[in-house]
Amino acid sequence: MSELLGVAVLGAGHMGADHIRRLDRVVSGARVVAVADPDPERARRAVAGIDGVAVRAEVWDALAAPGVEAVLIASPGPAHEEALLAAFERGLPVLCEKPMVPDPAGALRVVEAEARLGRRLAQIGFMRRYDAEYRQLKSLLDEGGLGRPLMLHCVHRNVSSPPGFTSAMLIDSSVSHEIDAARWLLGQELTAVTVLRPRPSAGAPEGLLDPQFVLFETDGGALVDVEVFVNCGFGYQVRCEAVCETGSARIGEEQAVRVTARAADRRAVPQDYLVRFADAYDREVQAWVDATRRGRVTGPSAWDGYAASVVAGAGVRALETGGRVAVDLPRRPALYG
Amino acid sequence: MSELLGVAVLGAGHMGADHIRRLDRVVSGARVVAVADPDPERARRAVAGIDGVAVRAEVWDALAAPGVEAVLIASPGPAHEEALLAAFERGLPVLCEKPMVPDPAGALRVVEAEARLGRRLAQIGFMRRYDAEYRQLKSLLDEGGLGRPLMLHCVHRNVSSPPGFTSAMLIDSSVSHEIDAARWLLGQELTAVTVLRPRPSAGAPEGLLDPQFVLFETDGGALVDVEVFVNCGFGYQVRCEAVCETGSARIGEEQAVRVTARAADRRAVPQDYLVRFADAYDREVQAWVDATRRGRVTGPSAWDGYAASVVAGAGVRALETGGRVAVDLPRRPALYG
Amino acid sequence: MSELLGVAVLGAGHMGADHIRRLDRVVSGARVVAVADPDPERARRAVAGIDGVAVRAEVWDALAAPGVEAVLIASPGPAHEEALLAAFERGLPVLCEKPMVPDPAGALRVVEAEARLGRRLAQIGFMRRYDAEYRQLKSLLDEGGLGRPLMLHCVHRNVSSPPGFTSAMLIDSSVSHEIDAARWLLGQELTAVTVLRPRPSAGAPEGLLDPQFVLFETDGGALVDVEVFVNCGFGYQVRCEAVCETGSARIGEEQAVRVTARAADRRAVPQDYLVRFADAYDREVQAWVDATRRGRVTGPSAWDGYAASVVAGAGVRALETGGRVAVDLPRRPALYG
Amino acid sequence: MSELLGVAVLGAGHMGADHIRRLDRVVSGARVVAVADPDPERARRAVAGIDGVAVRAEVWDALAAPGVEAVLIASPGPAHEEALLAAFERGLPVLCEKPMVPDPAGALRVVEAEARLGRRLAQIGFMRRYDAEYRQLKSLLDEGGLGRPLMLHCVHRNVSSPPGFTSAMLIDSSVSHEIDAARWLLGQELTAVTVLRPRPSAGAPEGLLDPQFVLFETDGGALVDVEVFVNCGFGYQVRCEAVCETGSARIGEEQAVRVTARAADRRAVPQDYLVRFADAYDREVQAWVDATRRGRVTGPSAWDGYAASVVAGAGVRALETGGRVAVDLPRRPALYG
Repeated sequence: MSELLGVAVLGAGHMGADHIRRLDRVVSGARVVAVADPDPERARRAVAGIDGVAVRAEVWDALAAPGVEAVLIASPGPAHEEALLAAFERGLPVLCEKPMVPDPAGALRVVEAEARLGRRLAQIGFMRRYDAEYRQLKSLLDEGGLGRPLMLHCVHRNVSSPPGFTSAMLIDSSVSHEIDAARWLLGQELTAVTVLRPRPSAGAPEGLLDPQFVLFETDGGALVDVEVFVNCGFGYQVRCEAVCETGSARIGEEQAVRVTARAADRRAVPQDYLVRFADAYDREVQAWVDATRRGRVTGPSAWDGYAASVVAGAGVRALETGGRVAVDLPRRPALYG
Repeated sequence: MSELLGVAVLGAGHMGADHIRRLDRVVSGARVVAVADPDPERARRAVAGIDGVAVRAEVWDALAAPGVEAVLIASPGPAHEEALLAAFERGLPVLCEKPMVPDPAGALRVVEAEARLGRRLAQIGFMRRYDAEYRQLKSLLDEGGLGRPLMLHCVHRNVSSPPGFTSAMLIDSSVSHEIDAARWLLGQELTAVTVLRPRPSAGAPEGLLDPQFVLFETDGGALVDVEVFVNCGFGYQVRCEAVCETGSARIGEEQAVRVTARAADRRAVPQDYLVRFADAYDREVQAWVDATRRGRVTGPSAWDGYAASVVAGAGVRALETGGRVAVDLPRRPALYG
Repeated sequence: MSELLGVAVLGAGHMGADHIRRLDRVVSGARVVAVADPDPERARRAVAGIDGVAVRAEVWDALAAPGVEAVLIASPGPAHEEALLAAFERGLPVLCEKPMVPDPAGALRVVEAEARLGRRLAQIGFMRRYDAEYRQLKSLLDEGGLGRPLMLHCVHRNVSSPPGFTSAMLIDSSVSHEIDAARWLLGQELTAVTVLRPRPSAGAPEGLLDPQFVLFETDGGALVDVEVFVNCGFGYQVRCEAVCETGSARIGEEQAVRVTARAADRRAVPQDYLVRFADAYDREVQAWVDATRRGRVTGPSAWDGYAASVVAGAGVRALETGGRVAVDLPRRPALYG
Repeated sequence: MSELLGVAVLGAGHMGADHIRRLDRVVSGARVVAVADPDPERARRAVAGIDGVAVRAEVWDALAAPGVEAVLIASPGPAHEEALLAAFERGLPVLCEKPMVPDPAGALRVVEAEARLGRRLAQIGFMRRYDAEYRQLKSLLDEGGLGRPLMLHCVHRNVSSPPGFTSAMLIDSSVSHEIDAARWLLGQELTAVTVLRPRPSAGAPEGLLDPQFVLFETDGGALVDVEVFVNCGFGYQVRCEAVCETGSARIGEEQAVRVTARAADRRAVPQDYLVRFADAYDREVQAWVDATRRGRVTGPSAWDGYAASVVAGAGVRALETGGRVAVDLPRRPALYG
């Protein structure tokens, strides 16, 4: 193949700018042909040095720019629904950053719109599915050599939370990654959620319930527990242990140079998810470009995005009520069989 | 010091015989002078090759044997209450294997009897407090450099459960170790317990709820979660991670030769707690002998044994009811301040 | 940037085919426009599915194909000198797989030819310089926080050697990677070499001196030791420990899922250098494409390729003589300052 | 058994005092009955709190004290020959700290004296043979599952060297441990030695050749390399990797709490050999007491002590000459078969 896939990127903020760089310099087979951002100055900075990119303020104008064959949505979550529906209307394949649509009702509208089309157009940006370690863990579980998975023990830690981060966001922003990862690793739906609230850390901003300990039950009888701690202070850590009937498998000990000095043996801990998951993002976008150039849609679906929204919503209610909240998921449309 | 402490060992089964060997050949400063076991043949086998040991069928007869200055109780749990009260009556210092008394009411009677004496005579055999790694973890937490502990994540796995092991015993026999360790590490009381029951492993005997996931709340606002899995098939594993405000500390990765062969890098996992905690048992008994020879009583107290019984009892009810059960602990007598 | 760099790939064997795939599907900013291989059928297979590639039997014909702007040499070592000189003649930037030229005299001719041009055109394929761990180690050493490096302990193991692999090839094919890595990490030249020959492993083919233990001295007073063992049977392992004045840093423990099962804690060991260094190859070629599109030449130079040839040659003589052989390197041309 | 073995300890310095404490409070079955030290005040301090110990200035007087049944030699190396011969003369079993006798000629006299007695009385204090990890490594090698050992890669690092430590002492004091360990692990004699001298670390005292890299050849065709670095600054580290025909086994990564804080994952490195090998010393002395009480002599023999002296002496000459020095060991007397 030689023709490069023309991509419109929606959103030129932190994540969008990183995806523009990735499409231009890392990924093979694509080029950025249009960018939409309400702040045209920011959009221009993000595409500096790339020739022939249409810079637009509006989503629709960017999608209509010459050469647009696919869309990468990296705008804030609340803007996703409109952008996805617009892409569907033009029949454009789309890679949409998570959360697909923060509001479960809106997420359902996206699923229904795609189901009406009768073919998949959307891939949702759950990049952990493209991380080398997660993929090895998934393979191990699928091969079945360790027996049925009984429990997943997960840890999700950030150095510190950004301003405005709320107690609910520990679940619907941070834990949403584990929600998708657990559904994918286990091949099971999550059916109930309970949130425990230890006394908050002194390192957490006033009023933020941090850390939290989240428990999911699944329709296969497995248990998923997640420690989420977004002001741990020391690093970005994502770990997962799958406890199976005849063995356990663990991922998430970041590889790094091992330094022995000053009375200790040390390995650096990454400070940022863009560092920890750099390769996963690269593989995710490359896989999307490759599939799209072949006319295919693979990877996490709009249904996965919707399910994550519903489970996260139940999690937030569990946090608020202190009790166990059942997850109520409608029947999965045939398209996502 | 040169005089050896004369010890009566009650119970000559698996654990008792191991303690007799330990007092005779490992520990400095003690000698076995009497053994009691309903099966005198078993008692005689356990002391073969040791000179001058009085072998008796009854506890009272053993305690009255010449030279008895201290008592080590290694009989089955239901026999402990009577043995402890007998030792108290003779004013003998005692090391009592766990569980101190399986029944909380009986455990309370022991506490009250000792409180009436007005001085401590009993040390309870929570040997993890003597494990090198646990002690390092305890020191780390006490030093405070990592801030306040927020959560303990614990794992407790056995290769397989012995015949007759019940679902309740996962809590009152296995998790009772974590109950004591958590109280000791945190210096906090456990105030409530919830037990989650994933679908049992195919490797568990019919009807046994194995694994279980147990959640404790503490009066300091911390959370303690314990995976207990007594038919994991692959080894004996005890891990603990203390998640604190500015860092986490982990123990329980057993040290062993690292072998790289046949496409993998391997470390052996011990198969038995007597292997994993061999040094802890040695240190525990040595510490007891040393203190006793100096006329002191240190280590876990009868109150610790009682508290573990009460919490474990609440855990068993939580397992049966599926809900959260509050722990109701009376006021701690001044003796155990 | 949007114009794709047109690359001619010389050699369509195992390595060449892998680079063709990489340029087509992994790396951003390049396309394969010509391939040369004496076996045109093999060349055609290697470019199947890629449009517009000129397939040629001869190097010169491939270099003259339309759109060729740069050359990637992946033919057998003995063919490199002619190919490099041909690329120089056409002024084409070139990425040449290692060994640059196996014969030190031929390697020197390449250096002299490039020096006559007065500008660098060649980058040599020492891909370890692009491995994430090696780069972190290099940064650590350059930052100087551990003091001056005193020793490098290196291990280089292969599952098994290919047919026809000779005792000399343990040095000039395998250890040549450590030769370049040591020069690069330390920023020092290697000045003498001694080879020790333990009794060969029963797993080595008859007559092959495997393993060997190679010692290099440097002009900075450091010592570099390399265990090379090409029939170790269990995996592909490349480790390096830099022992410095105030600490040591180690790389080469491959990250992988950690599985605890069947009485052991296991991590898989990769079986192949294409697995271990997959990312390094990708980064190497991407870095070369990026630099070339900007009109620059970076990375390991022809001088580095030449130095490796000279040191490896001395190593082979040391192996044959059993003694210490001094390395005789001419003055470095100004171009490679 | 109940009678305690009466031990005379010769030397009440750092090591002697530690052994006195060990015999009194750690080891089962022994008691200290006499101590000899030229400084009687130091001797008295070392036995404070122990009843009935004869304190003497002279070795002979201590050996003649009432109740002496065995001797532990912890005086400086140059005093060992006389002490060993005195113990032999009285027919007393003896545990002698390493080096047995620093001077090979003196060491040979001890071997010959014991051979004349026709029975072993001496155990030499190579405590690594009692370290849990070394023992596991030895078992692994003896079981043969990894094939024949081809190479041992050893590392021996100290935080800093004591005053007066010479370049030769890196070999005859520090590396002498690896000399014994290699002979024992491999069951082979060392036949030649070469010492390489990288440029000394800035952290080494003026004039001290530190680090050194020592290479031993064995009569079984194996190779043993040892990095010895006694001013590494960061900790006490002893590592050993046995590279065998079908796999490698490694020991020496000290187990410790793993702390994740301040952007790194850390394990403490011990600062002192008494910490790293605390358990090995305890097991060594316990094994000696147990064997002695049963009238047996086990463990490293005077021949092992002598062989270590001879190899270390060759090592020192290799250090001085810069070349390879063959080891000339006489025939092993039948007693040490």
